[in-house]
Amino acid sequence: MTMKPKPSGAIPDRMIYERRESGVRSYARSMPRQFGKAEGVWMHDSEGGRYLDFLSGCSTLNYGHNHPLLKQALLDYIAADGIAHGLDLHTDAKEAFLRTFEDVILTPRGLDYRLMFTGPTGTNAVEAAIKLARKVTGREMVIAFTNGFHGMTLGALACTGNAAKRGGAGVPLSHVAHEPYDGYYGPEVDTADLLDQRLSDPSSGLDAPAAILVETVQGEGGLNAASPEWLRRIADIAKAHGALLIVDDIQAGCGRTGGFFSFEEMGFTPDIITMAKSLSGMGLPFALTLFRPEFDQFSPGEHNGTFRGNNHAFVTATAALRHFWSDGAFQVDVRRRGDLLDARLTRIAARYGFETRGRGMMRGINTGSGELAGTVTAACFDAGLIIETSGAHDEVIKVLAPLVIDDATLGVGLDILETRIREAMTSEYAVAAE
Amino acid sequence: MTMKPKPSGAIPDRMIYERRESGVRSYARSMPRQFGKAEGVWMHDSEGGRYLDFLSGCSTLNYGHNHPLLKQALLDYIAADGIAHGLDLHTDAKEAFLRTFEDVILTPRGLDYRLMFTGPTGTNAVEAAIKLARKVTGREMVIAFTNGFHGMTLGALACTGNAAKRGGAGVPLSHVAHEPYDGYYGPEVDTADLLDQRLSDPSSGLDAPAAILVETVQGEGGLNAASPEWLRRIADIAKAHGALLIVDDIQAGCGRTGGFFSFEEMGFTPDIITMAKSLSGMGLPFALTLFRPEFDQFSPGEHNGTFRGNNHAFVTATAALRHFWSDGAFQVDVRRRGDLLDARLTRIAARYGFETRGRGMMRGINTGSGELAGTVTAACFDAGLIIETSGAHDEVIKVLAPLVIDDATLGVGLDILETRIREAMTSEYAVAAE
Amino acid sequence: MTMKPKPSGAIPDRMIYERRESGVRSYARSMPRQFGKAEGVWMHDSEGGRYLDFLSGCSTLNYGHNHPLLKQALLDYIAADGIAHGLDLHTDAKEAFLRTFEDVILTPRGLDYRLMFTGPTGTNAVEAAIKLARKVTGREMVIAFTNGFHGMTLGALACTGNAAKRGGAGVPLSHVAHEPYDGYYGPEVDTADLLDQRLSDPSSGLDAPAAILVETVQGEGGLNAASPEWLRRIADIAKAHGALLIVDDIQAGCGRTGGFFSFEEMGFTPDIITMAKSLSGMGLPFALTLFRPEFDQFSPGEHNGTFRGNNHAFVTATAALRHFWSDGAFQVDVRRRGDLLDARLTRIAARYGFETRGRGMMRGINTGSGELAGTVTAACFDAGLIIETSGAHDEVIKVLAPLVIDDATLGVGLDILETRIREAMTSEYAVAAE
Amino acid sequence: MTMKPKPSGAIPDRMIYERRESGVRSYARSMPRQFGKAEGVWMHDSEGGRYLDFLSGCSTLNYGHNHPLLKQALLDYIAADGIAHGLDLHTDAKEAFLRTFEDVILTPRGLDYRLMFTGPTGTNAVEAAIKLARKVTGREMVIAFTNGFHGMTLGALACTGNAAKRGGAGVPLSHVAHEPYDGYYGPEVDTADLLDQRLSDPSSGLDAPAAILVETVQGEGGLNAASPEWLRRIADIAKAHGALLIVDDIQAGCGRTGGFFSFEEMGFTPDIITMAKSLSGMGLPFALTLFRPEFDQFSPGEHNGTFRGNNHAFVTATAALRHFWSDGAFQVDVRRRGDLLDARLTRIAARYGFETRGRGMMRGINTGSGELAGTVTAACFDAGLIIETSGAHDEVIKVLAPLVIDDATLGVGLDILETRIREAMTSEYAVAAE
Repeated sequence: MTMKPKPSGAIPDRMIYERRESGVRSYARSMPRQFGKAEGVWMHDSEGGRYLDFLSGCSTLNYGHNHPLLKQALLDYIAADGIAHGLDLHTDAKEAFLRTFEDVILTPRGLDYRLMFTGPTGTNAVEAAIKLARKVTGREMVIAFTNGFHGMTLGALACTGNAAKRGGAGVPLSHVAHEPYDGYYGPEVDTADLLDQRLSDPSSGLDAPAAILVETVQGEGGLNAASPEWLRRIADIAKAHGALLIVDDIQAGCGRTGGFFSFEEMGFTPDIITMAKSLSGMGLPFALTLFRPEFDQFSPGEHNGTFRGNNHAFVTATAALRHFWSDGAFQVDVRRRGDLLDARLTRIAARYGFETRGRGMMRGINTGSGELAGTVTAACFDAGLIIETSGAHDEVIKVLAPLVIDDATLGVGLDILETRIREAMTSEYAVAAE
Repeated sequence: MTMKPKPSGAIPDRMIYERRESGVRSYARSMPRQFGKAEGVWMHDSEGGRYLDFLSGCSTLNYGHNHPLLKQALLDYIAADGIAHGLDLHTDAKEAFLRTFEDVILTPRGLDYRLMFTGPTGTNAVEAAIKLARKVTGREMVIAFTNGFHGMTLGALACTGNAAKRGGAGVPLSHVAHEPYDGYYGPEVDTADLLDQRLSDPSSGLDAPAAILVETVQGEGGLNAASPEWLRRIADIAKAHGALLIVDDIQAGCGRTGGFFSFEEMGFTPDIITMAKSLSGMGLPFALTLFRPEFDQFSPGEHNGTFRGNNHAFVTATAALRHFWSDGAFQVDVRRRGDLLDARLTRIAARYGFETRGRGMMRGINTGSGELAGTVTAACFDAGLIIETSGAHDEVIKVLAPLVIDDATLGVGLDILETRIREAMTSEYAVAAE
Repeated sequence: MTMKPKPSGAIPDRMIYERRESGVRSYARSMPRQFGKAEGVWMHDSEGGRYLDFLSGCSTLNYGHNHPLLKQALLDYIAADGIAHGLDLHTDAKEAFLRTFEDVILTPRGLDYRLMFTGPTGTNAVEAAIKLARKVTGREMVIAFTNGFHGMTLGALACTGNAAKRGGAGVPLSHVAHEPYDGYYGPEVDTADLLDQRLSDPSSGLDAPAAILVETVQGEGGLNAASPEWLRRIADIAKAHGALLIVDDIQAGCGRTGGFFSFEEMGFTPDIITMAKSLSGMGLPFALTLFRPEFDQFSPGEHNGTFRGNNHAFVTATAALRHFWSDGAFQVDVRRRGDLLDARLTRIAARYGFETRGRGMMRGINTGSGELAGTVTAACFDAGLIIETSGAHDEVIKVLAPLVIDDATLGVGLDILETRIREAMTSEYAVAAE
Repeated sequence: MTMKPKPSGAIPDRMIYERRESGVRSYARSMPRQFGKAEGVWMHDSEGGRYLDFLSGCSTLNYGHNHPLLKQALLDYIAADGIAHGLDLHTDAKEAFLRTFEDVILTPRGLDYRLMFTGPTGTNAVEAAIKLARKVTGREMVIAFTNGFHGMTLGALACTGNAAKRGGAGVPLSHVAHEPYDGYYGPEVDTADLLDQRLSDPSSGLDAPAAILVETVQGEGGLNAASPEWLRRIADIAKAHGALLIVDDIQAGCGRTGGFFSFEEMGFTPDIITMAKSLSGMGLPFALTLFRPEFDQFSPGEHNGTFRGNNHAFVTATAALRHFWSDGAFQVDVRRRGDLLDARLTRIAARYGFETRGRGMMRGINTGSGELAGTVTAACFDAGLIIETSGAHDEVIKVLAPLVIDDATLGVGLDILETRIREAMTSEYAVAAE
């Protein structure tokens, strides 16, 4: 295995990015290669380098790159002149997706949701969700949580915690209160109690909320995983105070934490769910907002969008649902592999007094230092492993391998990670500690 | 030619939409068929019906459905395991797109813009544009126009004029002032003068704007086409008052009005441009925000989004740019065909005292009545022609045929339209007028 | 008559203002004297200077300073240990005021209003008015006008046009649209038509308003006087679109324009009226919000304030209502004197090609230049006449003499004004014009 | 002593309130008498009843009603035709007030503040304070606290916690975050820590604040008294995070808690202080915003108001400062009497398992039930004692006697209170508890 890319030089054709692409680009800075093709867990750059992908498009490629079954379904569809773009018209591809989602996902779980095809980005699904909650309740305030991440358009951005992202708004972000997530004040403080107290107090200044918007695991916020007990409390609090419970399952859903939904078997049912990222299965833009039928209260076209009928995504999503979710095998395997990952990360972390974070195949190591974590991930990239950080200070090294990775390859990637952590700790950081 | 679809009956499998798709769906209501495949200007339903498409995904399919060259480029790319999803990493497909956009679009027009790959929806491109304008100017208020349409997420929705769409927000939409568009108060009143007077008056209550956001032709707002003189005035006013000029070219761009940009040869250069819809050429989700290099001021990742690197769209967009825009032939042909369309619509309109609206291949007839326009478009659909309405009261019948349509087929569609208008006017409306 | 004050020197005790009073002070800068006592139309400074008051506390002293009847009523009340402060408890003084207001003001005019004792400032009365309109209609947007002035607290400030005042907010001012006032676009354009068109258009982007808030004469905005026809149109438009009509009569009411209310005999009845300034008759803080009984919908205490029961003001207000408004004599006299003022100002203005502005005893000369107007008013002050400017550029010299001034003394003041205008025009401005 | 008022009957002249006063009136409902005169600690109704005042205009009458010295100073001033209203012109009365405030209050305490004469209501002082903090810092968000009360105009109302008051706004109240006050989550949780953690976390979603606005004792919010330690922490947190510390001393200042300012001897110095209520000493409308000289950054007139120069209030305020604050005797006496009050209330409360609240002469008993507290205060009123409740559920009986009350009379009032509590507990509540 030669994952090491060729040494980079001053390759002139890269100047096109400097010349024409906005400086807002980010991942391309820490991974300064140009990629051409990818299959499964591997990405290939234009200089012959091969990379093991522990980022998976931030959980957008849970089934790996260009999965053969999905790819073939899409090739067949395009070759047959299947509808690519159809606004929100009924199409064969949409029908197949709806049926499959009903048969494979909803019915077996005893869930009853309506599907809203929003514009095909997560932020759009979140915007639709909070608009709907405000419309249904007649209230304006939404409760979101510390370290939450929900998107970049103005409504979703107001729900996002990160100050740098928020600062980009250019206007004050309002109608949202950010409350402490599970464990935010340490294990002694039950933040659900704090929230309940304030919502129950007519003089707290916290207005009655339209919705409580929560991630079960905070992907961007540092892989904080809420406990089932806390989530149930939040669900109860929402109900008690007349608010809708919105679970943003964009990153944690589609199997990343084990089940198709991240909240399965936890004993509560959200009023609204947002999905995107791995929904299409192949990385194609696709987003959904699900809600209980009684909240299906938008007028026709009240929320619309040109690309809300991305039929290519319907095709690959249908293939993915059928292949991976028709029975429980995939889910069992992901959970088993998640435990494996957990065991390995815990061992690494313990060596340096670090903590692990996360749930299922969405786990990481909190190094406590953004500088250290950045040093490690940069060294990993040089060694052929694509891996990123997360958290308020980028201090958490985040393992988001494709769920379909085999155990051996997962081990290879973790070996690279372990080695780079050890090297980083041995050199500067260890020295600094003396 | 038998465009007439099979008579519809109570086909049970349609219940999936009732059962599972949100009531927010809209086009599917006025065009109650299920579509399977499409090529060029034709769409096919599941019952054997064939439809001539005068809607083109609201100008998303300017080159028709599944154009053979674009389709082949995409098939080849997928077959070779080309990167589908790459966050904002450099990829071969992105490089090719950037180079092509520079060579084919920017350089020949003497334009210098940076490209920001926003989330692949128009509303996201608009959100990025107004965030940037607010950041650059340090101001908060944006001026948009009556009947403008810019998207459904909270920041873009605040810029949208339509009351029904705005009502969906559930919170007050702020930081935007809606000013009268060109001709809004009739031909006697120069609305640019009105705007200039208020911006020049320190006691007008109109705060200094971060941006003026304008469509050159209002696609959803009734096909109102601003005059070049008015647009130049608006550009001058923006400059004089320290605001950035944003042209929302999502619907009017990509050749719809003749040139690649809708403002070409008008004598002004926008500070920011938003693009989406036909950008990918094949209906795939893709959006761009362009800005002058001096305004490239976002920090890395300050505005991001999972699907900002839709490489399938890069591939088809590149193929479309190369095929249609490498020389001026396509543009000349579109303009010629636009004149043809204009002549025909003017003749039809004149017969009933109606007015025409629009520019290039983005034209329509203002019937003055949403009920009448709806009757006509429904009858057209029954006759195998997909066509929609626009405007504050849905009173404008809107012709958005693919730009690649041949003259004969355009004529066939217009024949259908003309006949249905005549029938509608002969029956109830004529009767009512007696 | 020796109105000329003693020449000022470096009097050390003035340093207390530099040392302790905020730089936000304003009038004290253009009138750098210290005043001790005042009676009727005269103010006296600490250096023996006497000043004729053509400012009247910006129309707060319509009955002059320390009117003997009001003063005696207040002295008697205080001497008898009358309640000074009673929150909103019933008091003898409040009862007397309510009865008098009913008998002297409401009943003779056939008006039926409820009185709300807000905090005793105009801005508080405006805040209560717009809160109530929003509560009653369930809408959020308020329409105010260019050059309108309604106060400095956040809700009222959002309705104020002046950019320098607005800039002090430190947050975006929202939920208000500023529309052009009568005559704003010149005599050819009926701005009521423009407003009606936009409110009638569901795609204009102008949300349905809770209220239209208007001054009949814009005191701070340059003495623009709306025509009765335009005001009736605005009243009709408010009604047609489900908005409440709020007349802010804080400066123009209490006789300043002739009648007790500035809109009398114009053929419409506001839904809400705000009053303050001359209401107490002696310059004591007092404000009222009046509304039709059907809009009396605040819950007990929903809007409150410590000083909403300023009983001293009730006492002087009652005395003023009884003395000046029990019959029509005062009103007739004010109108006659207003005509006198108009004739004189018109003559002066005509000489220099200036225009006059205003109505009743609220009139001025638009010099077209803030610098010129400031030169004139400064020279007037040196000559013993207190007079100020108004308008977006402070270009209007504003005559707000006490309504009780006798014709001769009014003439004395206008002589001073005329002379200073002539001097200013003869010297620099005339020279500059050569 | 016959405090018992005459039995009330259906006195017809009260109908004027029903007919003409807005239903927003509140105190007049629970104290259905009409008052005529008052002196010291006593109020007299129109039916011969005499009431001991334990409300003091919500701490507006700290020196009692119509204090002879203040009353005489005002009578002399009015009799001599002293300026009543002078906008913000320099006057003898203002100069005397400024000098006295400097000599008696600032210099002895080593404090250096500029005084801004805002409109004469507490809410106006708060609006000016938060406008200034936003202007100085360039930030928009203000941190206020649970159960805080700061006024009814839109900017101050956003800082107020009470849901019923907030609901009156009719628009969402934004740019303010409400954080838990000292002790809000019980004695175990240090809410200053919670605040510091969130402000220190760039992903908490809590934007960097312009100001932290705090009452040292929450008068309307239930007499919660913050500890000096907590207040010092808040002051440190404000400083560390670049926010200005605003102490709203409108109710707790002017001697109510012992010192002239409520934060004296606590080891921190606010950046901005708001004052009103007892400032004039006689219940006349008067408010001040104080700030450190370096924050004196408003432009001339940037915040103004017609009644910002209430000279009558300057006169009585000057007399009050000289008489009560020239030496420490008054302060010593108030503290002693506060201890007396505390001892007595503690004894009463202990008997029923209630808790006491507050500090200095601003104390009360938390009965835990708004119904019980209301029953007691109503019974007190019938017995000739004016006393009110406070807190989110009106559950705290609040003793706000004039500070000048003699010990014996204080005892008389407390006897009434004690008896009514015992009666209430003996009857229904005790019965209910069986």
